[in-house]
Amino acid sequence: MKHIAYQSLKSFTEKVFLEMGCPTEEAKEASEVLLSADLRGVDSHGVARLNGYIRLWEQGRINAKPNIKIVHETPSTAVVDGDKGLGLVVAPFAMRLAMEKARNVGTGWVSVKNSNHYGIAGYHSMMALENDMIGWSMTNASPLVSPTFSTERLLGTNPISIAIPAAKQPPFVADFATTTAANGKLEVLKRKNEKAPFGWVQDANGKPTTDVDALKSGGSMLPLGGDREHASHKGYILGSIVDIFSAVLSGANYGPWAPPFVSFLPLREDPVGEGLGHFLGAMRIDAFRPANDFKAHMDNWIETFRKSAVTEENDRVIIPGDPEREISEQRIAKGIPLMDSVIEDLSQIGNRFEIDFGKYFKE
Amino acid sequence: MKHIAYQSLKSFTEKVFLEMGCPTEEAKEASEVLLSADLRGVDSHGVARLNGYIRLWEQGRINAKPNIKIVHETPSTAVVDGDKGLGLVVAPFAMRLAMEKARNVGTGWVSVKNSNHYGIAGYHSMMALENDMIGWSMTNASPLVSPTFSTERLLGTNPISIAIPAAKQPPFVADFATTTAANGKLEVLKRKNEKAPFGWVQDANGKPTTDVDALKSGGSMLPLGGDREHASHKGYILGSIVDIFSAVLSGANYGPWAPPFVSFLPLREDPVGEGLGHFLGAMRIDAFRPANDFKAHMDNWIETFRKSAVTEENDRVIIPGDPEREISEQRIAKGIPLMDSVIEDLSQIGNRFEIDFGKYFKE
Repeated sequence: MKHIAYQSLKSFTEKVFLEMGCPTEEAKEASEVLLSADLRGVDSHGVARLNGYIRLWEQGRINAKPNIKIVHETPSTAVVDGDKGLGLVVAPFAMRLAMEKARNVGTGWVSVKNSNHYGIAGYHSMMALENDMIGWSMTNASPLVSPTFSTERLLGTNPISIAIPAAKQPPFVADFATTTAANGKLEVLKRKNEKAPFGWVQDANGKPTTDVDALKSGGSMLPLGGDREHASHKGYILGSIVDIFSAVLSGANYGPWAPPFVSFLPLREDPVGEGLGHFLGAMRIDAFRPANDFKAHMDNWIETFRKSAVTEENDRVIIPGDPEREISEQRIAKGIPLMDSVIEDLSQIGNRFEIDFGKYFKE
Repeated sequence: MKHIAYQSLKSFTEKVFLEMGCPTEEAKEASEVLLSADLRGVDSHGVARLNGYIRLWEQGRINAKPNIKIVHETPSTAVVDGDKGLGLVVAPFAMRLAMEKARNVGTGWVSVKNSNHYGIAGYHSMMALENDMIGWSMTNASPLVSPTFSTERLLGTNPISIAIPAAKQPPFVADFATTTAANGKLEVLKRKNEKAPFGWVQDANGKPTTDVDALKSGGSMLPLGGDREHASHKGYILGSIVDIFSAVLSGANYGPWAPPFVSFLPLREDPVGEGLGHFLGAMRIDAFRPANDFKAHMDNWIETFRKSAVTEENDRVIIPGDPEREISEQRIAKGIPLMDSVIEDLSQIGNRFEIDFGKYFKE
């Protein structure tokens, strides 16, 4: 584990996207979006995935120079065709469009097809905050999750992010997978050689298991709730809603047809739509009540929850967004920690594009 | 347990609302909304609650002749003041407004303040279906739920309902509390003298407990997930979002200030808004893609999930809305089952308003 300055890692990543053929502004935006995951402590979704994007680009599944366009719209809605672009640039395009519509008619809702992995959901929803808007962001993803009672992998970890501005308090930023545990948490357990708690995964027959490798032998991840007694049908519902809003509404591939992120898995030969789907939304606060009133009450809401009495084992009640913001502050100051395997990976990417990763690393 | 014909129970309920002073159309609508819970098998939210509404009306907390009005609006949004009316009529007013806005600009979003309990969330979202729209419905509720790590009751069971039309398949209708278990399920266990599974409730110190009466001694209900290891912070986030959209956006009472449904608990002396809050939304399908395309893909989505392989213990994968629709068909045919205590309760309501409940019951 070594640390690298955020700006250095960003310059390197930007250079890689430029070498892939991304236009200057898009290379810049893609690296900012990708690295927002590393900053916020969601290491599974950051620069560790750069190689994955490159492999998809090499296979022609990602288009570095997409012609992103609006295919249908009304004053408050649109469907955007990402032209196989990086979700890292397609989603911000869609979010800007949602905010423009919110400026005009109060809210804006954009469903996106023909896109790819868009990094962390929270980056896109948070774009709304500085405009005194509430931001929404969802995406469907590689099918790894079984609905309650099923043994088939029909849904992704399908995250939902909603960002809500406050005044003196930092914003409320929800960003969560609709499964009990995100995939990254399973990877952490694997590395430590530990077992998973019951309720995270099931085996190929749909039996509860603590085997972190269950997915390799036909098992699946479990929806939030974990089992029927703990309302896993509600996690299944949430994942389904994300899938339908992101992909059925836009004309992307939904359910088991969602294209996998890993390039070694083939695309299905019977697609039901184009690429991966996202759903972005923006709601102008003052389309409901004066923004200052709302934000003052959000401060009160946040302070009430934050100062509420805690259980013996815990020292505070967490407001959604607190942990990620705190990690982000640390990492801006002290750099981004990279595992040796990620450093090795980035060096090889550097070699491939004739960029000296070591140079950035030393800066 | 006896059965009563749906139409008879509805006529009785309508007569009660008329006697309370509701205008004819509103008495009719209120009873239809209330009884949709009995039809769909959510017995805790149906006619068993009629007495609760009457008590609130007697205390002046419910206004039988409300002047429901729009206090602020944009082309796609509005805030509605329910004037202390029955949520059973305030929410449909708001939903009709959301649909009108959706007709004009693609989507409509209405946040409601100064309302009361609105029955089941699913009635309101389902109003959108016949118009080829997706319907949204949320409400905040009496504070009974502690956020993760907290021992205070800061949130209600805050349900979310989303209704999505299909073509040949019945619609996808999600309607769920953001807690592990709805309050009604605890009541069922109490009646059977059984314990609750861990993850449903905690005691006053925030320790896990199986005591179904834990709420009587300072305990609380737990957010979906149940404990931190099973991501109860995600249930806490969902309940919070419902609270903020329903009450902070509209100017209703939020968090621990949400007015309790039971009339024996006093209102707080330091309100942060007016009454209870709801959030209703409507999205025109063809604001995204042609409704027939969308609905054909929804059929495919539903059929794919419904026919997927099941675990040994189960015979089918359930689509959200399936169980409620099936119960509803049974109850339309065979009548609504009422427990003896509810029959006694309704007879007393009849006596109070000089309506012969026995007469309706025999029909």
